[in-house]
Amino acid sequence: MATKFISERNLRFLLYEVLDVSNLTTFSYYKAHDPKVFDMVLKAATKLGKDLLFPIFSEMDRKPPELIKGEVRVHPAVKSILNAFGEGGWIASRAPFEREGEQLPHLIADACDFIFQAANYSAAAYAGLTAGASGLIDTFGSRELNDTYVPKMREGQWQGTMALTEPEAGSSLADLTTTARPTDRGYCLMSGQKIFISAGDHDGAENIVHLMLARIEGAPAGIKGISLFVVPKKRPEPDGSLVPNDVVTSGLYHKLGYRGCPIVQLSLGDKNDCRGWLVGKPHHGLRYMFQMMNEARIGVGMGATAMATAAYYAALGYAGKRQQGRPVNQKDPLLPPVPIIRHADVKRMLLFQRAIAEGALSLILQCSRYVDMIKVLSDDKGDKYLLLLEILTPVAKSYPSDMGILAVSQGLQCLGGSGYCDDYPLEQYFRDCRIHPIHEGTTGIQAMDLLGRKVILENGRAFNLFTAEVEKTISDAGRFPGLGQAAGLLDQTLTRLKEVTAHLIGVAQTRGADYFLADATLYLEFFGIVAVAWQWLLQGIAIEKAMAEKMKKSDARFYRGKRTTLDYFYRYELPKTLGLARRLMDTDGLTVEMETEYFND
Amino acid sequence: MATKFISERNLRFLLYEVLDVSNLTTFSYYKAHDPKVFDMVLKAATKLGKDLLFPIFSEMDRKPPELIKGEVRVHPAVKSILNAFGEGGWIASRAPFEREGEQLPHLIADACDFIFQAANYSAAAYAGLTAGASGLIDTFGSRELNDTYVPKMREGQWQGTMALTEPEAGSSLADLTTTARPTDRGYCLMSGQKIFISAGDHDGAENIVHLMLARIEGAPAGIKGISLFVVPKKRPEPDGSLVPNDVVTSGLYHKLGYRGCPIVQLSLGDKNDCRGWLVGKPHHGLRYMFQMMNEARIGVGMGATAMATAAYYAALGYAGKRQQGRPVNQKDPLLPPVPIIRHADVKRMLLFQRAIAEGALSLILQCSRYVDMIKVLSDDKGDKYLLLLEILTPVAKSYPSDMGILAVSQGLQCLGGSGYCDDYPLEQYFRDCRIHPIHEGTTGIQAMDLLGRKVILENGRAFNLFTAEVEKTISDAGRFPGLGQAAGLLDQTLTRLKEVTAHLIGVAQTRGADYFLADATLYLEFFGIVAVAWQWLLQGIAIEKAMAEKMKKSDARFYRGKRTTLDYFYRYELPKTLGLARRLMDTDGLTVEMETEYFND
Repeated sequence: MATKFISERNLRFLLYEVLDVSNLTTFSYYKAHDPKVFDMVLKAATKLGKDLLFPIFSEMDRKPPELIKGEVRVHPAVKSILNAFGEGGWIASRAPFEREGEQLPHLIADACDFIFQAANYSAAAYAGLTAGASGLIDTFGSRELNDTYVPKMREGQWQGTMALTEPEAGSSLADLTTTARPTDRGYCLMSGQKIFISAGDHDGAENIVHLMLARIEGAPAGIKGISLFVVPKKRPEPDGSLVPNDVVTSGLYHKLGYRGCPIVQLSLGDKNDCRGWLVGKPHHGLRYMFQMMNEARIGVGMGATAMATAAYYAALGYAGKRQQGRPVNQKDPLLPPVPIIRHADVKRMLLFQRAIAEGALSLILQCSRYVDMIKVLSDDKGDKYLLLLEILTPVAKSYPSDMGILAVSQGLQCLGGSGYCDDYPLEQYFRDCRIHPIHEGTTGIQAMDLLGRKVILENGRAFNLFTAEVEKTISDAGRFPGLGQAAGLLDQTLTRLKEVTAHLIGVAQTRGADYFLADATLYLEFFGIVAVAWQWLLQGIAIEKAMAEKMKKSDARFYRGKRTTLDYFYRYELPKTLGLARRLMDTDGLTVEMETEYFND
Repeated sequence: MATKFISERNLRFLLYEVLDVSNLTTFSYYKAHDPKVFDMVLKAATKLGKDLLFPIFSEMDRKPPELIKGEVRVHPAVKSILNAFGEGGWIASRAPFEREGEQLPHLIADACDFIFQAANYSAAAYAGLTAGASGLIDTFGSRELNDTYVPKMREGQWQGTMALTEPEAGSSLADLTTTARPTDRGYCLMSGQKIFISAGDHDGAENIVHLMLARIEGAPAGIKGISLFVVPKKRPEPDGSLVPNDVVTSGLYHKLGYRGCPIVQLSLGDKNDCRGWLVGKPHHGLRYMFQMMNEARIGVGMGATAMATAAYYAALGYAGKRQQGRPVNQKDPLLPPVPIIRHADVKRMLLFQRAIAEGALSLILQCSRYVDMIKVLSDDKGDKYLLLLEILTPVAKSYPSDMGILAVSQGLQCLGGSGYCDDYPLEQYFRDCRIHPIHEGTTGIQAMDLLGRKVILENGRAFNLFTAEVEKTISDAGRFPGLGQAAGLLDQTLTRLKEVTAHLIGVAQTRGADYFLADATLYLEFFGIVAVAWQWLLQGIAIEKAMAEKMKKSDARFYRGKRTTLDYFYRYELPKTLGLARRLMDTDGLTVEMETEYFND
């Protein structure tokens, strides 16, 4: 098995040369840190990934969780991993000093998550979910809830979850039916069913803390009547003991991949003794949950990027060693075969993977940087970044998820028959990565969010802010002769995106929302290509700046490789927008008008 | 689990209305048959698929083969399935009457294979491989080899295989090293290793008959020195007993999918007693094997099409029942939710699957029809069809394989989280279908075959014959006003394909083979879209003819559904050629010139 799963060199390039993470330390919120601290943190994360997570990547897949006598047993390493994440401060890395967190920039904390997810996605999920859930209590919960739950979660003793989905409410959260009956003792009595709950039960943690959406009895229908609760598996008594809280694990899913992390079905209040504590105000639950959800969506994009990255290095390792065939121009069978990496088609497959993985990583870290800007700026100044983050969230979730599958699939293809067998990790990446377009809102849901909400938000203000950012990059790139062609291509494509957007908004007005949104998924794909092309151009500027200086031979090699990958994206990926634009301008309502009965034969 | 895995209605439409299978009975070779016979055969195949194969589709995946004490144990149903295929005459369905075959048109026999593969790909593979291997002995083997092996194989008692791949010779068959040392007793002594041999050992058959490529000692290097042998696992003695033939199963692969069929590693001649019998003339092995290989390549395309079809019906079954969300224009949460098939994005995903699956099926059956035409016509008249078959074989193998993965993935997506779990068959289809771009020559190999051999064959004659066929269809379609737009679009795209082809041939002359072939895989993709668009237009003509007549309501529904699927292909898939053409015209040698060391960071 290959041992490389990320490029530290590329991560440093993005953080320091493209996104200027050092600059964040000039703001008072992050002034306690400096680049040396960041380097130490990144090194520690890499070490944790290499030593603790990556070595059991396959093993956790092959020994998946089991439901035994109502309890989920996971790989024994999960407990030590959660503890290590707790002790290392990784679960509280983004929390402020005053809450005993590390107050790290999201840019750095997210880069660490990338390392963990590339090393072992399932293993990283436990801590990631706990960080999100504890952050939610931290931000919206009472002091008491904070004191009771957050420290144990951040120490890696207790597992946090997001408990949203129900049998009849998956993509449609408006249809949630889990009920909370208020009592006069400060808690509600919960009853209902939850399904598809990641890390929703396991023996690697002493307790499971569900951040759960439910309806208080008598609440309005739809999303306006949803509240957020803390519902522990075991409730802590004043003496510190833990008492069962009538949360029953009624099922464990057998999944295609992502098998190191259990996904369970929960039954609440079968004995009428499941207690839940309201977080914040009644009926505000969905808004609170969306803090965690938006982070989780970008986290899914990051996970998809991380997996595509690890799969790329696994394919690259094979392609450099496996000898097969001869160059097209030298077919003499008496000559020795060459490593397959010398075949143009194999290089194409590797460049595709790299262009996707490194482009997506850049986009996700761009979002992290916006989160940091929102944190360090006053509300009025941060507003711009909030809108940019809003419009990019569905893109940062979906582009890596959908393209990641194709990238991993090409990685598998590099190995031929060996890619299809479990002697190599590619088949696992192929199974694992298929979750991403599904969890935390399917691609279809993200597409509706982008076109139906974000693009038209505040009369197109978020969209205009985005195009202004891209235009600024195009203009900056124009100063480097080596980037003129790419800048010109992106300029044309951005113009086309604006035309398509204007056309679709016209459709919304003349033909209604169903015609407007019919091809939202294609619009999302188009938008994603533009967003990643923009990130590659930003990287191109950093490459040009670096290459204008004297440098070490190994650095020159790195920048030339990056530069060819940029060119790959512009010459092979960007042209895909031509077909998408053709379709999007041709709004005939084909899918809207297709009668469902026509599918019957 | 859904019970529908193919559309009999669509199969009849393609066979009778598009490809006019009845017409084949006017040729003397097929005159013993008539459409009634064909109907009976198709009904029998459907029944076999429904009763015997489909019910154990999941079970065969969950109880995969095991290697126990040097022998592979498969699902107990394999033995009865092979016997049923033998007894029903399915293994000999294409063999001539004089060889005790059924002498069925390939069009009908291939349609039956489609049914079997859709029902259970792994189960169908055993008989399919045996049919191919026995056909190879039949065509090129001696009378003695025929008498010894073919009857038992066609009865489903003995398993046939293709034994090509070796540890150091996967895509590069020129590097085969398995050796055959001639003796004076009519056989050779074989020694070497074979890997990735499908159905290469199992206890569902009394014997395994390997059609094996090897080098006779002293043979020339490269593909010119390869011969074909029959190498049985157990050699039949004159008294009818079977004696071990020193063929050892040294390994069993654990695969991502396609788990119902074992893929093994073989060690030959460890005790210097592995006997092989030459088929035909020495050093002609690769040419003989290509008979089976070309059939197998189209068979892989058919298998991919069949899986995409079955996955489509599984997704359709779910989408029609699962209630979730409300129409975009009706968000009132008090209204009941609707089946998800009513959402435009779900209809889009289903139409995509159907457009791929039914378009690919049409293309494969077109190839079957060419095989039949070659059979019924004299050599000089059949030559045209031989060339059409040659140029379409890599396309018919790769388009369904590559697009099938995307189609199945969209099917899985229709089910959301349920698609990721093994309560539904989609996750298995997703694993199973990933084999197709790999086995029988990877997509990269097919692309080199198409552009590097077939397109330039006989000075472009095969290419010109293909474009003439497409042009004839465009011209025929032009007579139907309803098809004018589609015909115009295909005409434009075909012109672009010709331009791209001429451009690339120019590149071959000016810059050499490596630049010419660098983007062969993209060329294959482009060609595939044109070929399938052509098939959809052929279907369109049949639809228009049918809709001009009075018909039953159910028929009208069928044709309208087909018609919308055609429109889907033209409006969503055909535009993808715009981006491909853009890239293919821009032959900058990016991948050729990418230094392999640039991948190092």
